[in-house]
Amino acid sequence: MPVVAPGTPFDHVRVVLVGARNPLNIGAAARAMSNFGFLHLRVVNAYDVAFREARSAVGASELLAHAEEFPTVAEAVADCSLVAGTTAATRRELQHPLRRLKEGAAAIRKRLCSGDVALLFGSEKIGLTNEAMSHCDWLMRIPTRDEHRSMNLAQSVAICLYELARDSGVALERLNPDATNQPATAANVERVTMVLMEALRASGSLQTRSAAITEQKVRRMLHRHELTAGDAELWLGMLRAMLWKMEEGKESR
Amino acid sequence: MPVVAPGTPFDHVRVVLVGARNPLNIGAAARAMSNFGFLHLRVVNAYDVAFREARSAVGASELLAHAEEFPTVAEAVADCSLVAGTTAATRRELQHPLRRLKEGAAAIRKRLCSGDVALLFGSEKIGLTNEAMSHCDWLMRIPTRDEHRSMNLAQSVAICLYELARDSGVALERLNPDATNQPATAANVERVTMVLMEALRASGSLQTRSAAITEQKVRRMLHRHELTAGDAELWLGMLRAMLWKMEEGKESR
Repeated sequence: MPVVAPGTPFDHVRVVLVGARNPLNIGAAARAMSNFGFLHLRVVNAYDVAFREARSAVGASELLAHAEEFPTVAEAVADCSLVAGTTAATRRELQHPLRRLKEGAAAIRKRLCSGDVALLFGSEKIGLTNEAMSHCDWLMRIPTRDEHRSMNLAQSVAICLYELARDSGVALERLNPDATNQPATAANVERVTMVLMEALRASGSLQTRSAAITEQKVRRMLHRHELTAGDAELWLGMLRAMLWKMEEGKESR
Repeated sequence: MPVVAPGTPFDHVRVVLVGARNPLNIGAAARAMSNFGFLHLRVVNAYDVAFREARSAVGASELLAHAEEFPTVAEAVADCSLVAGTTAATRRELQHPLRRLKEGAAAIRKRLCSGDVALLFGSEKIGLTNEAMSHCDWLMRIPTRDEHRSMNLAQSVAICLYELARDSGVALERLNPDATNQPATAANVERVTMVLMEALRASGSLQTRSAAITEQKVRRMLHRHELTAGDAELWLGMLRAMLWKMEEGKESR
């Protein structure tokens, strides 16, 4: 990706637009990214025409041309070790930890030296779905007033990136040389989620009707746990051992 | 102007759009104003059709309906005791003092108790003209990168107002009082540790020799996960289900 100056901290940020509908918004989001030096755009399940229009718009940037498309949130965040979502909702309505943008941006900046960070924005109309949120470690909210909370998509992107870049002189955290202490990637957390779901199924305690909701609940919790790479490995080992045992029991009958 | 809660500091800010051309931009600027609680919009020499379109757009706010029109910048800022302009230009090109947004916003906040402040934004294409700038006490710039300085108008408005409101102490919602979101007690974490160890033993994967070390490792990890009371319950339920299944398999042989 030739547009990127490799090695700058912002090079580790992936701006992920989930289900964006309006080509003008996608274009405006890309422009704000370029303004502040965030050059990696990912789109998930974009309304196809919107994305193609935005891409071919006059003056569309190289950034937009290099945007990556993904069919699912899971795939779009797989290589990221921190996944932060944005929302206009209040804590009351949410099942995730919620940070003010200011604090959220500070937390993100700290992570930029140790891995890639995904910053998720939902669609213009409904924001992030519960499924999309279940892939997030935590959420952050731009402090708008209660009487008019919901912001324009491209403006939200602009403000979040402004806040991230605002004090970019701030020293970034040192790399931890021990790989097992590094944050687990989203792909690893997803692997734990999948094995745990398999183990639940094997235990016979998973209701088919509520399986999807349980899966989201479990994924949310695992993201909240902020697993290290070593933790993910430990959980995988333990859960697989239990899974094998349960399946062995089944076969022996 | 009935939309305004009189007496709040932001009530002293006049957002002044000079020569805006695009109705979508005017509408989006108004939306950002409403998001952050700035309710006084003034437009100078707006491309007339644009302004009328924006005003009559579906969902156009009361704010937009109450926007005041002025033929000149001089008239639009006449009652203000501080006039701050925005620009994408660098100091080299300017004949005005130039502040970073962060410092400019701090200076504006200090003035809000002693009089009205005008915040000027130029047109999409050329920004503020020299004539318009000549009415300003000083200018401020959003710190975009040199390779792509010029921002979308409505995004600039959104970011400037965000910065003005950023430290205004708008309290976020209180922590969810829901008990399941409270941190788990150490006793609960210990209960999860114990059930997990029991499940590991049942799976046959626990070496007797290293059991004590594994137990410490698992306990440390669970404490690092910062479980909520709800998380502890969820883990206990899942692990017990697996444990029962493994023991059932054992008995059936």
